[in-house]
Amino acid sequence: MGLLLENPAPQDTSDPAALFEFLLRMGDTTLILGHRLSEWCGKAPILEEDIALANTALDLIGQTQMWLGLAGEVEGKGRTADDLAMLRDAWDFRCCLLVEQPNGDFGQTIMRQFLFDNWHLAMLRKLEHHADERIAAIAAKAAKEVTYHAERSTDLVIRLGDGTSQSQARMQAALDLLYPYVGELFTLSGEDLRPAYDATIEAVLAEATLTVPESRFAHHGGFSGARHSEHLGHLLTQMQWLQRAYPGAQW
Amino acid sequence: MGLLLENPAPQDTSDPAALFEFLLRMGDTTLILGHRLSEWCGKAPILEEDIALANTALDLIGQTQMWLGLAGEVEGKGRTADDLAMLRDAWDFRCCLLVEQPNGDFGQTIMRQFLFDNWHLAMLRKLEHHADERIAAIAAKAAKEVTYHAERSTDLVIRLGDGTSQSQARMQAALDLLYPYVGELFTLSGEDLRPAYDATIEAVLAEATLTVPESRFAHHGGFSGARHSEHLGHLLTQMQWLQRAYPGAQW
Repeated sequence: MGLLLENPAPQDTSDPAALFEFLLRMGDTTLILGHRLSEWCGKAPILEEDIALANTALDLIGQTQMWLGLAGEVEGKGRTADDLAMLRDAWDFRCCLLVEQPNGDFGQTIMRQFLFDNWHLAMLRKLEHHADERIAAIAAKAAKEVTYHAERSTDLVIRLGDGTSQSQARMQAALDLLYPYVGELFTLSGEDLRPAYDATIEAVLAEATLTVPESRFAHHGGFSGARHSEHLGHLLTQMQWLQRAYPGAQW
Repeated sequence: MGLLLENPAPQDTSDPAALFEFLLRMGDTTLILGHRLSEWCGKAPILEEDIALANTALDLIGQTQMWLGLAGEVEGKGRTADDLAMLRDAWDFRCCLLVEQPNGDFGQTIMRQFLFDNWHLAMLRKLEHHADERIAAIAAKAAKEVTYHAERSTDLVIRLGDGTSQSQARMQAALDLLYPYVGELFTLSGEDLRPAYDATIEAVLAEATLTVPESRFAHHGGFSGARHSEHLGHLLTQMQWLQRAYPGAQW
């Protein structure tokens, strides 16, 4: 633990390569999670949840346009947010491993969202004060949306964890499965955000009658691009297919 | 029932368009089933089955190269078997709906294979006598391989059906799920092949302690291209991705 990425979230943004990398980490993470959530469209357990998941996905894709749009500007090679999203291969993605993980059942999707939202919100609130006002502006806009995401996933974790024995068992299984992907988040944000995160999620999970795994073992490799999970490539085949099959297609 | 495709398997092959369509029906069907079976590679329940499924997949892909290779020749536009396999979209595919269906569990894959192999073998034995010797030659070569496929899937259906209560239940569920996709096969081969097919599979399924569904309701639309199942497009995103992402790539 305590591991940090090289140049995780550079305060000095005079190095375009380091800034580009950081913006990819933010934008690829929201892109891949947004795509994952969109897989629920038309399939969620009840209509209200279907719409809520789709709205969350749209928020994340909107944030992606901002992060990757700025990444393209910073890179200065004329690539748009769409180019970056649709025409890179897996090894050029910089999303964290948590958001690549499959949806599983509804409870697993909500647990992934809960673990992510609480980190995401803390990260954005930190970035609101970033010296680069372009970053601060994106973070401020995104934080408003993510505040709502975190409220919603927190409520659902409590309802499902402290629900029936079946829903409780599923939520515990989801937590056990996904918790090893939490540690990587703090390699980008810095460990200084972790104590407050831990306090928040531990209080919620206790109310949800769920037990936080003891091990702090953490998978790494997504943000750095060193090793993505096998799921990313499969996701990209579906996400990028239209643009790959019909290059330059426009709505 | 008794429905036939227009020009299902033309004896008179002087119309290149009708012949092209027929060759796509044969070649797309072996292509898509071959791809489906390849999804098991590295994941089958035991090593011997893993290898057997991969070998069956390779046989089917080999047959695809012959059918689609001839299709490209007949079409006369310079398209190769690879071009036809990797650069068409779902609406141009002419595979039957049965082979698009997901693998499910191992039993479901074997049941799909059993229902297909027995039709496939009868169809190839009919085509061995086709007036067009190119078709007859492909059919004769393929029939040797498919004789073995049918023996193997027949043995496994009996072992799994007449196995444990769990394996029996899974095989019955697979049969109930897949039987409505059988009828379409005979729209290509002609209903004259059906009585012998029915006699064969009913004897095997009885030995496997499985009950053939009473309804002869049959889904259509794959061979004609009028309506593929939702699964085909998803399969194509994965199958075609490399060629789409790296146009013209060579090993």
